[in-house]
Amino acid sequence: MKITTMSSNWSATVLTLFPEMFPGPLGISLLGKALQQNLWQLDVRDIRDHGLGKHRTVDDSPAGGGPGMVMRADVAAAAIDAVERKDRPLIYLSPRGAPLTQTRVRALASGPGAVLLCGRFEGLDQRVIEARGLEEVSLGDFVLAGGEIAAMALIEAAVRLLPGVLGDPASTQDESFAAGLLEYPHYTRPQLFEERPIPEVLSGGNHSEIAKFRTARAEELTKERRPDLWTLYEKTRR
Amino acid sequence: MKITTMSSNWSATVLTLFPEMFPGPLGISLLGKALQQNLWQLDVRDIRDHGLGKHRTVDDSPAGGGPGMVMRADVAAAAIDAVERKDRPLIYLSPRGAPLTQTRVRALASGPGAVLLCGRFEGLDQRVIEARGLEEVSLGDFVLAGGEIAAMALIEAAVRLLPGVLGDPASTQDESFAAGLLEYPHYTRPQLFEERPIPEVLSGGNHSEIAKFRTARAEELTKERRPDLWTLYEKTRR
Repeated sequence: MKITTMSSNWSATVLTLFPEMFPGPLGISLLGKALQQNLWQLDVRDIRDHGLGKHRTVDDSPAGGGPGMVMRADVAAAAIDAVERKDRPLIYLSPRGAPLTQTRVRALASGPGAVLLCGRFEGLDQRVIEARGLEEVSLGDFVLAGGEIAAMALIEAAVRLLPGVLGDPASTQDESFAAGLLEYPHYTRPQLFEERPIPEVLSGGNHSEIAKFRTARAEELTKERRPDLWTLYEKTRR
Repeated sequence: MKITTMSSNWSATVLTLFPEMFPGPLGISLLGKALQQNLWQLDVRDIRDHGLGKHRTVDDSPAGGGPGMVMRADVAAAAIDAVERKDRPLIYLSPRGAPLTQTRVRALASGPGAVLLCGRFEGLDQRVIEARGLEEVSLGDFVLAGGEIAAMALIEAAVRLLPGVLGDPASTQDESFAAGLLEYPHYTRPQLFEERPIPEVLSGGNHSEIAKFRTARAEELTKERRPDLWTLYEKTRR
């Protein structure tokens, strides 16, 4: 077997107060192997390197009062400005952002990478968000302790789509959101599990029947669980 | 200063094929400190311990054909059945699930914990999802390489709400989704950043004006970025 060496220039730069969190889970399994094979690059920077004074202060109390601390605009700007952008989008992970979608993930995967700023504390001074034109991206409608795990999720979602990362690239064609539907259910051996058989049509070898069955199940599931996606799907079919 | 020792019985059990990913980012910063202080417990189990034969096989090819591999129902069931549930919900992280919300996170944080099954490959045999009544939860409308980073996000979101984990519990009262709105923008020193001043009202010390300003900004932001949340918010106000 001939091993083809692939390499890609897709790179993620992560700005964080906890660089020791990286690569973490991104250094293991598929993503970790791909990192070793240079299918993507990870560059982690400590925001505290741009902190002020001998304590390298990065935060201060919120103007107008309130609990917690806010990350300073000048410190965040210095950390951002020290990165070579190379045409990569500059993303701030925040629950106030646009919810991440597979469409955005595909766009990110087909670009040169991303620069990701991980917030901590109550958040980041609004003025650096505006002054540097940060794209605010949210994983979903819940609140994390910081942007690091969100950055990992975004990176994992994008990197698995890069050429050579998944064993079988066809895996990404049927999956959830690829056709605007949730994915159909999967079955594998044994034939009988606790008196539950694999649906008969899947063992019949009739590929067109199998495809019909899977589409019907994906449609049912989407209609039942995600009326929002179902409405969009119906519109695109008309 | 008197240090009060708190401890909680909130526990997460994670079933994964990559136990070495944990605690990972959950062992660092706020969450890591809270773990050391026994404010929560983490128990990580290797699904492969329940694999079949001398190769401890956990997957097989999909019934009906298609790319990739499917996690076997019997193996997943054995891994699940080996866990002492202790009234904790049994959650399967999957893009087909119900999108995680802060409401679900708060419910999880006020309960005894969670048992989290992390999928890999194309997914899990549908029959074990049905037979064990797994609650399918999705981080959002994007696809990860496995459930591990999603489990970390869910755990981080819940644990930060446990008593004693955040320095100032008031931090969780104003944040995004707490009142059905995105959070208002934050500002801190310096007073002037690149010719951008902190909004005047925040320096005035008039608490009722400050509260009004913040609510107005949170409403504007939600209306502009998240018409879906805005519609719900308007309904609850009537």
